[in-house]
Amino acid sequence: MRRLRYAMVGGGRDAFIGAVHRRAMALDGQMELVAGALSSDPEKARASGRDLGLADARNHGRWQDLLDDELKRSADERIDFISIVTPNHMHYPVALAFAQAGINVVCDKPLVHTSTQAEDLAHAVQRTGAVFAVTYNYTGYPMVRQARHMVQSGQLGEIRKVIVEYNQGWLATKLEGGDNKQADWRTDPSRSGIAGAIGDIGSHAENLVATITGLEIEAICADLTTFVPGRKLDDDGNLLLRYTNGARGVLIASQIEIGGENDLRIRIFGTQGSLAWHQEDPNRLLHASLTDSPRILTRGSGGLCPAAVKATRLPAGHPEAFHEAFANVYLGAGEAMRARSEDRALGALEGDYPTLADGARGVRFIELTVESAKSEAKWTPWS
Amino acid sequence: MRRLRYAMVGGGRDAFIGAVHRRAMALDGQMELVAGALSSDPEKARASGRDLGLADARNHGRWQDLLDDELKRSADERIDFISIVTPNHMHYPVALAFAQAGINVVCDKPLVHTSTQAEDLAHAVQRTGAVFAVTYNYTGYPMVRQARHMVQSGQLGEIRKVIVEYNQGWLATKLEGGDNKQADWRTDPSRSGIAGAIGDIGSHAENLVATITGLEIEAICADLTTFVPGRKLDDDGNLLLRYTNGARGVLIASQIEIGGENDLRIRIFGTQGSLAWHQEDPNRLLHASLTDSPRILTRGSGGLCPAAVKATRLPAGHPEAFHEAFANVYLGAGEAMRARSEDRALGALEGDYPTLADGARGVRFIELTVESAKSEAKWTPWS
Amino acid sequence: MRRLRYAMVGGGRDAFIGAVHRRAMALDGQMELVAGALSSDPEKARASGRDLGLADARNHGRWQDLLDDELKRSADERIDFISIVTPNHMHYPVALAFAQAGINVVCDKPLVHTSTQAEDLAHAVQRTGAVFAVTYNYTGYPMVRQARHMVQSGQLGEIRKVIVEYNQGWLATKLEGGDNKQADWRTDPSRSGIAGAIGDIGSHAENLVATITGLEIEAICADLTTFVPGRKLDDDGNLLLRYTNGARGVLIASQIEIGGENDLRIRIFGTQGSLAWHQEDPNRLLHASLTDSPRILTRGSGGLCPAAVKATRLPAGHPEAFHEAFANVYLGAGEAMRARSEDRALGALEGDYPTLADGARGVRFIELTVESAKSEAKWTPWS
Amino acid sequence: MRRLRYAMVGGGRDAFIGAVHRRAMALDGQMELVAGALSSDPEKARASGRDLGLADARNHGRWQDLLDDELKRSADERIDFISIVTPNHMHYPVALAFAQAGINVVCDKPLVHTSTQAEDLAHAVQRTGAVFAVTYNYTGYPMVRQARHMVQSGQLGEIRKVIVEYNQGWLATKLEGGDNKQADWRTDPSRSGIAGAIGDIGSHAENLVATITGLEIEAICADLTTFVPGRKLDDDGNLLLRYTNGARGVLIASQIEIGGENDLRIRIFGTQGSLAWHQEDPNRLLHASLTDSPRILTRGSGGLCPAAVKATRLPAGHPEAFHEAFANVYLGAGEAMRARSEDRALGALEGDYPTLADGARGVRFIELTVESAKSEAKWTPWS
Repeated sequence: MRRLRYAMVGGGRDAFIGAVHRRAMALDGQMELVAGALSSDPEKARASGRDLGLADARNHGRWQDLLDDELKRSADERIDFISIVTPNHMHYPVALAFAQAGINVVCDKPLVHTSTQAEDLAHAVQRTGAVFAVTYNYTGYPMVRQARHMVQSGQLGEIRKVIVEYNQGWLATKLEGGDNKQADWRTDPSRSGIAGAIGDIGSHAENLVATITGLEIEAICADLTTFVPGRKLDDDGNLLLRYTNGARGVLIASQIEIGGENDLRIRIFGTQGSLAWHQEDPNRLLHASLTDSPRILTRGSGGLCPAAVKATRLPAGHPEAFHEAFANVYLGAGEAMRARSEDRALGALEGDYPTLADGARGVRFIELTVESAKSEAKWTPWS
Repeated sequence: MRRLRYAMVGGGRDAFIGAVHRRAMALDGQMELVAGALSSDPEKARASGRDLGLADARNHGRWQDLLDDELKRSADERIDFISIVTPNHMHYPVALAFAQAGINVVCDKPLVHTSTQAEDLAHAVQRTGAVFAVTYNYTGYPMVRQARHMVQSGQLGEIRKVIVEYNQGWLATKLEGGDNKQADWRTDPSRSGIAGAIGDIGSHAENLVATITGLEIEAICADLTTFVPGRKLDDDGNLLLRYTNGARGVLIASQIEIGGENDLRIRIFGTQGSLAWHQEDPNRLLHASLTDSPRILTRGSGGLCPAAVKATRLPAGHPEAFHEAFANVYLGAGEAMRARSEDRALGALEGDYPTLADGARGVRFIELTVESAKSEAKWTPWS
Repeated sequence: MRRLRYAMVGGGRDAFIGAVHRRAMALDGQMELVAGALSSDPEKARASGRDLGLADARNHGRWQDLLDDELKRSADERIDFISIVTPNHMHYPVALAFAQAGINVVCDKPLVHTSTQAEDLAHAVQRTGAVFAVTYNYTGYPMVRQARHMVQSGQLGEIRKVIVEYNQGWLATKLEGGDNKQADWRTDPSRSGIAGAIGDIGSHAENLVATITGLEIEAICADLTTFVPGRKLDDDGNLLLRYTNGARGVLIASQIEIGGENDLRIRIFGTQGSLAWHQEDPNRLLHASLTDSPRILTRGSGGLCPAAVKATRLPAGHPEAFHEAFANVYLGAGEAMRARSEDRALGALEGDYPTLADGARGVRFIELTVESAKSEAKWTPWS
Repeated sequence: MRRLRYAMVGGGRDAFIGAVHRRAMALDGQMELVAGALSSDPEKARASGRDLGLADARNHGRWQDLLDDELKRSADERIDFISIVTPNHMHYPVALAFAQAGINVVCDKPLVHTSTQAEDLAHAVQRTGAVFAVTYNYTGYPMVRQARHMVQSGQLGEIRKVIVEYNQGWLATKLEGGDNKQADWRTDPSRSGIAGAIGDIGSHAENLVATITGLEIEAICADLTTFVPGRKLDDDGNLLLRYTNGARGVLIASQIEIGGENDLRIRIFGTQGSLAWHQEDPNRLLHASLTDSPRILTRGSGGLCPAAVKATRLPAGHPEAFHEAFANVYLGAGEAMRARSEDRALGALEGDYPTLADGARGVRFIELTVESAKSEAKWTPWS
């Protein structure tokens, strides 16, 4: 199988998430970094590219140069896709330009700052047919796919309630304004957008619910707070949700909960049973039912659904974790890219990745949550 | 030390909680059942009293007869207190009558149906000086008292957020209308009051927060739902809370969450650290801080506060649980009764029990939560 | 139901386990302390008796006086049983005297110092028909009884292996010789017998295996160590075991494992499945099988065996713990005593308590373990 | 940094561990597969190489051809090392040939079948200076390195006891002789060597203890059992150990413990504290001490040792697992190879990988364990 060639925008020296993307892609040996514009600082971009062994001709100081250069190259050399791992505010221009050029895109989340921007991307993709994936990486965990299967095949009955939490504590004090690059941009509205914690991590929580349950939000009641003095964006969010099927939801996303590391967890309650999953213990899924004792389903053990099995590399008890889940998102997107380039339909189980629609819905979720937080009405309807 | 004599109203054959109260009192050998009106059905009341070895003369068919009889008895024979363990709607008349008669009262929760009733009780108590305890039994756990100590001594800094949950699943289907006596009265407005899950277990959650943190609710935003068709009261409640110090809260109380047994848990986040406690694993308290690795505090181990130590009967690793916590509430109330009868002030650490004020606040919490759930305004202010 | 009258030998002021026994008996209101010789120090004995409200006439300075006095009393006043909670060396003379007098005995473990002594007790019991229970209290946990049921009904297939551990750390430093009364006698051969940790807690581990599985030891290979300088008895023991059915065992009992509180745990592996239970989390039992995902069985939930149900007072999620397990042992012994006094056979499920045979086997276990530890042969056969 | 070129022997289609090695190496992008002899079946070897994109000229049917070919190539093309991932019996001839040729070797464990073979390898390495790593992969976990640091810096005081377990259940029934290739060779003495479970996984347990504690075994007392009828090697092993410093050990390695997946866990007890680590929950390390409450150390959080920090790719709460630990072993070996090729000494923290000495000691451990199991003497001395 030919390795897919990719370029990266962002992800240079000192960046956090770019290296994660590269390792996730490297893991299975199906993707190869061949070009980049790895920082908004041209010097740093090129130094970072050299670190990664990029050829000088494909190691760019500006992402526009990267795009120009790629468009000049022949099909057997040109990148198969662009991976965008910049701070949020750069997602839109870069993704739009590449999508308009017909180049497949993998973009970090939250997708863009506004729903209008998301629509622009949708139009571009519709026109060019580019594959567009958004790295809601937590959906790549095998046991998340197992949960999705169990909900969607009716094993829980009708869903009544979802509790999703994303508990972090790293921003419990004011780290921004110092030397913490991550804290800086994530709390800066010009780069992060209109939301802090609810955008950075709440959007993952929203996506996890939607991915597993398929429930659609009917209305949001949000309380967003900025606890740390001087901070410009929310660092704590607590939401009540109503879904169109009548289900109720609670969504908690906080970055001031000391003791929380990356504590994303979800509980789903139906008329017949429930599921509980925890990202920090990702190889297990707890299944309770009306009639039997609760069961512990484990990644790699027997009886799991094909999508979970496909997303599994190691036997039970040999834990897989964050990188592998991330890699699964790329594998699914890569399948779609191969199908596109071969002009064929996706096979069964192929193309299992979060799409532009997920990204756009996530942007809308952030907008409406912020709107709700400012509203005195209890419920802000989805629109 | 003289055993305190008590009578019980409610708690006859087939009742659940009456036997719990009796075992809790028996555990430490400081209290002795001497009289009762153990059921609203006089026949059953007397049969139940015979089961428990009550003398015929003090085994009554009606609680009014019990009261009359006690008032005729001399001080060295009369009960020290009445323990009221009936369904909710009987709390008010019984508690009021005994309190007005100057007899100490221990009453189950939620205290009464309305704040007006709670005020009546307060007036009676104020006039007669009767000790009045409400069995918010979860506050009796040693590690809850340790948590209270840590918060109130500032070890967590200023409190920013509290997440409290009470997850149950036993009412996920329609049990009422069959032979489940517990389900029957707890879902019946005439006996349970205006609220279902939020009254039955949400009130415990409210009390746990107040006991540990001392925070005062400023406003409530509640979503109450009845999921099971035909049920008359809410079986699921999700609340956002604002406290007067600026802290935020989430309160979840549900009886349709399949897999939940009696899953009361609380997390408290301050500027300096956090605590997490879980009623089903009650001998441990997790303490995270800004500066150190999280620690596991265990009941019976070194370094705990005097109130936790006092509430402990067994060494570390020899688990104590529900009965012991319940017993601690009675011990605290018993101390107050002894002090009253000896006309002396309570000693340090004495009289650690939930009071009428706790009970009244719990009733107000239920009223405002139901009001909020019906309101289209986001926030219903505490009043 | 008439309360059983009991007297206690040992368990006075500052004793640990006596109060546990009394609370366990008090919990269900079926047993009543009426007499005692609560310390080997007559003054302290009487002061302790006064603390507990004993009448002067039945509050003795010496256990011999207690026995003499009881034998003079009429049947409707005389104690139904003696509860012996002294340090180990006093078990033998007291138990023998009461058993020979035909009075029922409940005796703490390990039963006695030597198998010869155990035989003397057996002869006495055989002659007089006295009920004799040994408080291997951990067998009273409902989930231990569930485990026993599952093994004995074949749900695990044939048992291949058992791993049992009793991990404590409280004797990791030299506490004896100071003011720690517990440490003093438990490390003193004249009071504790020939073994330290292996006698004090290893015997519980042995009993737990035997109770649940019914396996019989074929041979023992023991390594006993005294880690703390100056200590006179072992404080750490590690054993390999062979059972007569071909199963293998590992038994660990240590009091120098820092971090261990009262960490008794057992895992049982059969040809069809396995069980795991942990005393510090006693309301759960983990069941794995060849064919399905592992299940978590919980006390109070549906589908448990009658013996587990009978041993349960509270619904699922309302945790029961150490006192309740202890109480269950007394309840079972009490049933046997009532049956004896009524000259009738035990009913189904009645009389579920550890017997003199358990106690005697435990003594033999200690003897052979110590013998094995001194031997250069790998296997010391059971004899 | 130049990518290291490697060839692989074994690891073709249907093999399990070869793909793990390749993913581990790919993760960090520092190593590149350029040649191979991927199966003992030449056809399958070449087909497997084509799957992995090997050039025909470097895709061999026999490992001898691979070696011959490499020796003909120039230094700037020749592999930097050989990765040996065959069944055990092929480790010796392949490793010896490459080491004698001066080519660096990474070899799976257990190293070889006999100590004599291990000595041959040592002589070859001594003569040629080849780097030789053995993939005891569990030592690559950051929290294992943290544990090693804490023991070796004296934070636990003197080590008294180690309990190490490797619990698996996958061989609880007879899988060999069917279509399970893994079960086949691992239970076949001609390929696996003289030991089954104790060689396959017990050797990991031995290595984990040695790596973390540095303790040296003084004597072994082993009980090895074959539970599954018809199986040729042990499937369950239970060992008592004595270390030269007086510490005691228990080692359990079983493949018939139903419910066990890959449950490697270790507890280490010293005079000042203890540690507990579990491979299936690898990002946490529990630290208990004589004086404080137990602490939970987490990968990626503050205060860990430099070796743990270096082995960490992701922030706290973003779990790393099996692949990353494996990759850390390769990273350490790669550092040693680079230092060798640059003829320089290793820097601080460089070259952290299990060596030939670890491998040889592991072989001796297996030999003596099997010898002990056959012996009637309790203790088989290390020799």
